[in-house]
Amino acid sequence: MDPQTSSQLEERLAKVKLFLCDVDGVLTDASLFVGLEGEYKCFNILDGLGLVTLRDHGVRVGWISSRPSPATTARASQLKVDFLYQEKGSKVDAVEKILAETGFEWEEVCYVGDDIVDLGPIDRAGVGVAVANAVPEAKALARYVTRVGGGKGAVREVVELILKAQGKWESVIAFHTGRSEK
Amino acid sequence: MDPQTSSQLEERLAKVKLFLCDVDGVLTDASLFVGLEGEYKCFNILDGLGLVTLRDHGVRVGWISSRPSPATTARASQLKVDFLYQEKGSKVDAVEKILAETGFEWEEVCYVGDDIVDLGPIDRAGVGVAVANAVPEAKALARYVTRVGGGKGAVREVVELILKAQGKWESVIAFHTGRSEK
Amino acid sequence: MDPQTSSQLEERLAKVKLFLCDVDGVLTDASLFVGLEGEYKCFNILDGLGLVTLRDHGVRVGWISSRPSPATTARASQLKVDFLYQEKGSKVDAVEKILAETGFEWEEVCYVGDDIVDLGPIDRAGVGVAVANAVPEAKALARYVTRVGGGKGAVREVVELILKAQGKWESVIAFHTGRSEK
Amino acid sequence: MDPQTSSQLEERLAKVKLFLCDVDGVLTDASLFVGLEGEYKCFNILDGLGLVTLRDHGVRVGWISSRPSPATTARASQLKVDFLYQEKGSKVDAVEKILAETGFEWEEVCYVGDDIVDLGPIDRAGVGVAVANAVPEAKALARYVTRVGGGKGAVREVVELILKAQGKWESVIAFHTGRSEK
Repeated sequence: MDPQTSSQLEERLAKVKLFLCDVDGVLTDASLFVGLEGEYKCFNILDGLGLVTLRDHGVRVGWISSRPSPATTARASQLKVDFLYQEKGSKVDAVEKILAETGFEWEEVCYVGDDIVDLGPIDRAGVGVAVANAVPEAKALARYVTRVGGGKGAVREVVELILKAQGKWESVIAFHTGRSEK
Repeated sequence: MDPQTSSQLEERLAKVKLFLCDVDGVLTDASLFVGLEGEYKCFNILDGLGLVTLRDHGVRVGWISSRPSPATTARASQLKVDFLYQEKGSKVDAVEKILAETGFEWEEVCYVGDDIVDLGPIDRAGVGVAVANAVPEAKALARYVTRVGGGKGAVREVVELILKAQGKWESVIAFHTGRSEK
Repeated sequence: MDPQTSSQLEERLAKVKLFLCDVDGVLTDASLFVGLEGEYKCFNILDGLGLVTLRDHGVRVGWISSRPSPATTARASQLKVDFLYQEKGSKVDAVEKILAETGFEWEEVCYVGDDIVDLGPIDRAGVGVAVANAVPEAKALARYVTRVGGGKGAVREVVELILKAQGKWESVIAFHTGRSEK
Repeated sequence: MDPQTSSQLEERLAKVKLFLCDVDGVLTDASLFVGLEGEYKCFNILDGLGLVTLRDHGVRVGWISSRPSPATTARASQLKVDFLYQEKGSKVDAVEKILAETGFEWEEVCYVGDDIVDLGPIDRAGVGVAVANAVPEAKALARYVTRVGGGKGAVREVVELILKAQGKWESVIAFHTGRSEK
């Protein structure tokens, strides 16, 4: 990324008030564990702590999947995610429902996706992001491509970019380093 | 691949009407998760969306395993796969039953495999494919070897090759990018 | 490996009548999936087909773990493994019980291990093998170190070495390639 | 590491009487498998044998997580870990409770962590360790960064460093190699 692009990206990250992402391939590496007892998905603890920290600092969080799964519901509930959509249909429409409900604009949205069903929201969001393992069509539309893959901390990477651009990251670190002096 | 081979491959891909593949090592990375509650297999969401898209565009889909597993049955049912064989015995015979039932010919079949039990159908199919992690004997017989491994999107890779060779991929992308304008 | 060592190894492989291996780190990559419903282990389908093929060609198969696990018992039962030891205590003693029962000698044993508890049998077996991910102490004692890691096909690799050294591999391949002509 | 640093590290390792570590990202690779039946974590057998061997040689062992999980409780119970903390709140405070209970000092503690919630104890421990996959802020504070990642044997690596610095490793190896001569 050249410096100018980078500063433009930072300006856009500074405006983010709503963090939305796809689930499979973004919060996971696209693996789906299937057996007689139903299905499991492999989430990442770093992403979880990142999303909780982001919400604690005033950014709302939502997940948008086009495939309903009890595994997704369970993890969203653990992390107290603000919005959860798991229906077939247009993801652009799903985001627009959240915008209508919250009063936010597309340019205040950061959206992270990996596959062709994410092309619409990546194209429209203020900060459209494709994960490292995304299809080429998603990377071509994205303003940022993560260094690590989905399920390996890609969401955490974007969360830190937002918190840094909004000047909130240093206090997070200071808090955790000095916790016994509180 | 040199250009001539590539155009021959494309001609063969254009004729595919039946997509068949092995399960373990192709739709998974050959991992099998075993515990007291039975077994789990790790499928890939990209493969799933690929197979559904392929069926939506007129290619029929079947899985041929020589090892019965409730995990395979569960995933096949989620994806509404047209044919599912899970019996010990010759995979060539299994394919020929499907050909007899559907009226398709071997040259209209794309078959993807990884291990020695797949040698027969890889050798006979119009487009015999070995995944990146296949045994050398399978790669030697295959017309195409995938770039990514089984369970990592190998089936999705072949699905996209078919849809591109049949001139159907561009409309898939256009549909997903423009979904809110519908 | 220089040619002389290689031909010595082949001579030793040709004499193998009993294939024994550790479980965790050899048939798996040392991962253990733990939850409220008990534990899962991640086995490899290629290893499974390899062990079944080896037994079909007259080599007996056993697993020796020093940690009892229902996951191991379930997979051993699927593959109809001849011997299964899962007790704390010396693995050398466990092998010697099998030798006493079967009448085989240490030099007819191929043993595959990865960790310090495997040092004894790796040292004594006709063909002591360490997997690619084994501790350095195990590799130092082994006559062969696998190219791929435990759970990634290491056991399959050794099985093929044995079948090739015993002149049985070509007929396995011929059988699977020509299956519909039977 | 230059020789001087290395000998300083060895001196510190020689004093360790209490081995403490985080769970997610250290004993696992930060993966969390979530489904309807609860959650699974992927531990490593090498770490398990390492921790048991460490306890057998007089070093006490504890795990400190800020996220309660039945998967963690189950694995801690299998390994008979001496201390298990799984509460929200300061990890420095958790360590200090253990120090008060046992009479050990911070300089006798080896603490292994990966994320921002581990910064406090990594900073204060006699031997603060960050795993290979740790966040940069943790690596910056650590006296040692492991070569392998969390869940891939990082804890085993540190355990061996301690046992070697305390002159106990050679007898472990001799015991396992010669087990049938006992």
